[in-house]
Amino acid sequence: MVDRILAAAESGLESSLGRLFALLRIPSVSTDPEFASRCNEAAMWCAEALGDVGFDAKVHPTSGHPMVVAHGGPPAGAGMPHLLFYGHYDVQPPDPLDQWRAPPFEPRIEKDERGEDIILARGASDDKGQLMTFIEACRAWKSAGGGLPLPITVLLEGEEECGSPSLEPFLEAHAGELKADVALVCDTAMWNARTPAITSMLRGLMLEEVVISAVSRDLHSGMFGGPARNPIHVLARILASLHDDGGRVQLPGFYDGVAELPDEIRRQWDALGLDEAAYLGEIGLSQPAGETGRSVLEQLWARPTCDVNGIIGGYTGKGTKTVIPAKASAKVSFRLVGRQDPRAIAETFRAFVRERLPADCSAEFIRHGGDPAIAFNLGGPYFEAARKGLAGEFGTDAALIGCGGSIPIVGSFKRRLGLDSLLIGFALDDDRIHSPNEKYDVASFRHGIRSWIRILGEMRQLEGGGS
Amino acid sequence: MVDRILAAAESGLESSLGRLFALLRIPSVSTDPEFASRCNEAAMWCAEALGDVGFDAKVHPTSGHPMVVAHGGPPAGAGMPHLLFYGHYDVQPPDPLDQWRAPPFEPRIEKDERGEDIILARGASDDKGQLMTFIEACRAWKSAGGGLPLPITVLLEGEEECGSPSLEPFLEAHAGELKADVALVCDTAMWNARTPAITSMLRGLMLEEVVISAVSRDLHSGMFGGPARNPIHVLARILASLHDDGGRVQLPGFYDGVAELPDEIRRQWDALGLDEAAYLGEIGLSQPAGETGRSVLEQLWARPTCDVNGIIGGYTGKGTKTVIPAKASAKVSFRLVGRQDPRAIAETFRAFVRERLPADCSAEFIRHGGDPAIAFNLGGPYFEAARKGLAGEFGTDAALIGCGGSIPIVGSFKRRLGLDSLLIGFALDDDRIHSPNEKYDVASFRHGIRSWIRILGEMRQLEGGGS
Repeated sequence: MVDRILAAAESGLESSLGRLFALLRIPSVSTDPEFASRCNEAAMWCAEALGDVGFDAKVHPTSGHPMVVAHGGPPAGAGMPHLLFYGHYDVQPPDPLDQWRAPPFEPRIEKDERGEDIILARGASDDKGQLMTFIEACRAWKSAGGGLPLPITVLLEGEEECGSPSLEPFLEAHAGELKADVALVCDTAMWNARTPAITSMLRGLMLEEVVISAVSRDLHSGMFGGPARNPIHVLARILASLHDDGGRVQLPGFYDGVAELPDEIRRQWDALGLDEAAYLGEIGLSQPAGETGRSVLEQLWARPTCDVNGIIGGYTGKGTKTVIPAKASAKVSFRLVGRQDPRAIAETFRAFVRERLPADCSAEFIRHGGDPAIAFNLGGPYFEAARKGLAGEFGTDAALIGCGGSIPIVGSFKRRLGLDSLLIGFALDDDRIHSPNEKYDVASFRHGIRSWIRILGEMRQLEGGGS
Repeated sequence: MVDRILAAAESGLESSLGRLFALLRIPSVSTDPEFASRCNEAAMWCAEALGDVGFDAKVHPTSGHPMVVAHGGPPAGAGMPHLLFYGHYDVQPPDPLDQWRAPPFEPRIEKDERGEDIILARGASDDKGQLMTFIEACRAWKSAGGGLPLPITVLLEGEEECGSPSLEPFLEAHAGELKADVALVCDTAMWNARTPAITSMLRGLMLEEVVISAVSRDLHSGMFGGPARNPIHVLARILASLHDDGGRVQLPGFYDGVAELPDEIRRQWDALGLDEAAYLGEIGLSQPAGETGRSVLEQLWARPTCDVNGIIGGYTGKGTKTVIPAKASAKVSFRLVGRQDPRAIAETFRAFVRERLPADCSAEFIRHGGDPAIAFNLGGPYFEAARKGLAGEFGTDAALIGCGGSIPIVGSFKRRLGLDSLLIGFALDDDRIHSPNEKYDVASFRHGIRSWIRILGEMRQLEGGGS
């Protein structure tokens, strides 16, 4: 049965690519209000595509960009697991334009330096190529399998690239309609082009901005230099104190809730055989900058960080200006692991800054929000079904990997819908998401469609549902 | 004799103000190419005004804004000192416009919060009001004293606010024409509204920019945070190491050539009776931030500094962006004293930075130039003549003050023309030069004209000249 459906997908691959290209042509840049109508257009396109595949799809307006909710397959509660598939139709801004090899919203297939066919476009990997692997898998089930094999709800949002402000209110308001047994999130990567992955943990994220004020107005450094407190110096000192020489964050209590990596996971990750020199070399480094004595993967997936993402103060234009500014500021973000509490991290950071303010200085903080880390319980029937599907497609076991980044939606699904998530994606680390010349391997697209076909087949055989 | 000339100046004060207003109306902003023709206009206005007063004035084009050179009075070498008066007709940009009480190029007289009449306009204090005190003093000598009392050369430039790029080449090319015995520079302040000052020392200035590079491109802090070296952290650590807790600069050799303040000067400055709390309070401070244990005036006039004038790296726009940038940079300037050598300071700064670079980081430096400190030998006939003139006008001795800022022209006069300078000005520290709502007290203008009248009278009685 599954073989028939795989064959249908194979023979329909060109058409599938054509449909993906149509979606890629819509510049659904969510952070820029000028593109709001294009985001609408992308939402409507997705709803139509889902309708074509047998879903009952609706576009729901929000105070931001619309949500697409589609229901299909056998009725829920029929003894089969009810899946909720999530993706996002919005994309990052394409800037800087002059660094793209071809226009970012005119998708094309090229051969890259590996000799592989790639789809070059903004959104090819994040997230349109990924979400289309699932929709095209559903299409193959409809055309060659008699219909969708399970109750499936598809939820597509249009604000993931700008912090998903409408998401939690929407989940809360529509919790009844969005009932399911497990969420499928297709927004992560494979271990490499030959090895699929299931992401087993995500780091959390907490963002703070701090503004240090000292003198009451910008001052001429001749007339006041010496006696005048310089907030850039104060800020630099505080930021410099955030880490010790071994890369350990110095905030009191920062490592509360951070457990040492279990040996089993350490062994699994070591067995992945990451070429650390190649990883570091690709970003211009010879040494990892994280906590001394820990592997690159451990630093990236299982250790918390504190990074200054931006700093500004004083005169930053061309040439010189001998000013002592009134203020200096920095944007700081923390990647969280384990049971670290975003609110506690914010508090210890603010206290740390305040304790280090010399006379005549004040600090103002702007909280930009936070989400804790998430670790998935591996095992369970959905996980096993996914593993089988992936092993069948790739001929090798899926790697169980962490992720250095954060996917807040996963926390929202747990909080608002009581749902666990399976994170399965077909992107690659060199897809240049958020950068110019974003790509998605045609092989990722093809394997992705085929993997979902298989996974849906495996899931269909599970007892389950009723929720 | 001098009384007659003072009386003429007194009765002509309204006309003098009228002429100053005409000059203030010309928006001679030298940093902005859009105002180049207005700078020309100001130069021509000055040449005409000098011509009216009996000078033979010429406008000399340069590759930048023109120089005005005017000669007047008895022929040089007639047994009298030959004076070279310097001022600048260009002004700072007026931005930010929305903070001005009235349009910056529509001068007016207002009463300020002290009940004093002030001239409100960009350039009122820096430097048009100041240079006009001298020109109007010359006018009074011509109208009531039979002519200029001494050989006087007037040199006005139009690029002081943008680093005077044309000045040194001009001095070199015209050294013969610009021969004199002493330079008079009217670009400094009084000690307070009742106490004139002669500035006895100027700090030097050295400017460097440093760019730290780490990773080879901007990175997503989820995908790379931990292993990825962050250049903002590296820069912050280096900048934080520049000073110890006592405010002492940590660059090796930084204090070479910095002598302790002679007791006599320390006593003179203590006797000035600066209200340290008021000075600091006016800029929002309760404590001076310079080297511990030194008075505010010593920190400001006789101690070297290192100030970061600007810092930038990563994302600095609205909201957040979880980026680890490829670079971070800072503009650093040093105020110099004594025999500190700008080139040696640049070298020790660069070595200091390089030594503190961790693996995989590099530093690029941009040298923005430098001038050493200048201290004047007080005493000598010109100095005494100036003291007498000022004491006669104000009824109190001139304070002998330092200056935290730098006036590179003074070094240029010494280097190119072999001239010492007398720094006498009538501005006040609250004139808000380089800021919105710049003002010049009408009393400063009046006392300035009268002081120059007296000083020229005193100078005329000296033997001298022949250079």
